[in-house]
Amino acid sequence: MPLLVAGSVALDTIETPHDTRENVLGGSAVYFAYAASYFTPVRLVGVVGEDWPAEHTALLQSRNIDTAGLEVLAGTKTFRWRGRYLDNMNDRETIDVQLNAMGQFNPVLPDAFKRCRFLFLANGSTKLQLKVLDQCPGATLAVADTMDLWIRTERDELSALLQRIDGLVLNDSEAKMLTGENNLVRAGNRVREMGPKFVVIKKGEHGAMFFSRHETYVLPAYPTAEVIDPTGAGDSFAGGMMGYLAERGDFEPKTLKEAMAYGILVASFTVEDFSLERLKKIRREDLSVRMEEYRKMLTF
Amino acid sequence: MPLLVAGSVALDTIETPHDTRENVLGGSAVYFAYAASYFTPVRLVGVVGEDWPAEHTALLQSRNIDTAGLEVLAGTKTFRWRGRYLDNMNDRETIDVQLNAMGQFNPVLPDAFKRCRFLFLANGSTKLQLKVLDQCPGATLAVADTMDLWIRTERDELSALLQRIDGLVLNDSEAKMLTGENNLVRAGNRVREMGPKFVVIKKGEHGAMFFSRHETYVLPAYPTAEVIDPTGAGDSFAGGMMGYLAERGDFEPKTLKEAMAYGILVASFTVEDFSLERLKKIRREDLSVRMEEYRKMLTF
Repeated sequence: MPLLVAGSVALDTIETPHDTRENVLGGSAVYFAYAASYFTPVRLVGVVGEDWPAEHTALLQSRNIDTAGLEVLAGTKTFRWRGRYLDNMNDRETIDVQLNAMGQFNPVLPDAFKRCRFLFLANGSTKLQLKVLDQCPGATLAVADTMDLWIRTERDELSALLQRIDGLVLNDSEAKMLTGENNLVRAGNRVREMGPKFVVIKKGEHGAMFFSRHETYVLPAYPTAEVIDPTGAGDSFAGGMMGYLAERGDFEPKTLKEAMAYGILVASFTVEDFSLERLKKIRREDLSVRMEEYRKMLTF
Repeated sequence: MPLLVAGSVALDTIETPHDTRENVLGGSAVYFAYAASYFTPVRLVGVVGEDWPAEHTALLQSRNIDTAGLEVLAGTKTFRWRGRYLDNMNDRETIDVQLNAMGQFNPVLPDAFKRCRFLFLANGSTKLQLKVLDQCPGATLAVADTMDLWIRTERDELSALLQRIDGLVLNDSEAKMLTGENNLVRAGNRVREMGPKFVVIKKGEHGAMFFSRHETYVLPAYPTAEVIDPTGAGDSFAGGMMGYLAERGDFEPKTLKEAMAYGILVASFTVEDFSLERLKKIRREDLSVRMEEYRKMLTF
């Protein structure tokens, strides 16, 4: 079943303690779409400027990602983010953000996109997320990501969004910020009480937690010794999760847990190199192999 | 099979954002022994002062913990620790430490204790740990805990200890400090290369990782909304783990993983109240029930 994603499309400059990469392919919708493409056809909604390299569009199209919703906005440049990771490779600081095209984006979905039943509102302004959601009245599963910036600056819009979506994905510090709860189990349940049927809290190197009315569980991250660049891990997680749900065409509790595991595994590959470099080298079979190891790890 | 533990026996004063408890029963060997007592008879080695309440000894004895190795040192007071937890309930600061009897402790094991084949050197000075190990030449499984203080001040003794033990249990920040590695998978393997056959890294609310020559895995913590006092969680984890190994009488890979899980579950109860209050209310059956939930959580 096709999966719609709307979010940022970016050129990132990433500094880690060991290396730096300039203007590499990034953005929440890009990482999400590539991760989801292992499982299902993806329809991408985003905006770029005139400096956008055509090769990036070609790469996405080669993965069965429909870029009809990727607008090239005349007279603008592509959204740019520059970040620096600290020695622990978990904490990072944003050095520079240039919204560029993203600041003027007014998403208008192609008609075929509007009929998507599985929908993910990747990280981006809550106002933009609402505009996309408005155009997809037939969605059967609408899930969103959010971040600290929108929790602070678009709180009312976020409250409205939470009433209209089925699931929310956010990281641990954001869940604490949104709820004022320091205990993650309480925070997850509090977010759920704000509207969505389920909530996923991403814990970075520590895995992810799931909350629904009937279930609370946590799955660990796949342990990897090679963390080269954590950028996009959370978006890849969401892409793997939603991609698997769209492939299966349901979101039963059992499917959701398998989807969480696939999200964790795609993310474990993403961090093993900069940008999409590692994902470009793996196939669905590599995910299956790692899934076997992961299941074995959790069996005793 | 009986399990020997040597370590601190303390009176703790604990401040959390919500409550304070003065002079409650604590110490690494106490939490460990109580946790292990769900699985196997325990032999406790430690020291206290003349102010030690007899009721604490009675409590331990009621759990099939042999206190013949608990020395009451004349003219001294019991070791005291005072700590304060920050709002996140994970980070804490030590407000005051009074070594008292612990500073003069020269452990001399009862003969019956020396024949124990399962041995745990709970947190305490590495020099003391070595003195206990010297008295147990027939140990088939010797495992130790350590902490930042000893990594800084008794590095040579710690290196010697690591050559002589089968397993080391330490927390994530200590593993990073000991190895200079920020990635926990690398840190765990580096510690293993220092001597022990296996290494367990405790990650607090995020669970625990296991490293042997053939296996690396991580198990998440059991998600609990009730974290009243995290003191002793790590020692309870070790007690549950070692207690189960001693009960089973082996340390095959399969048994070790089950033991890790039991450690995680005992710790998940410990944090639900101050001191040993929560553990005092549960029975082995409660652990079994939570184990079923935990296995279910990790199955998909």
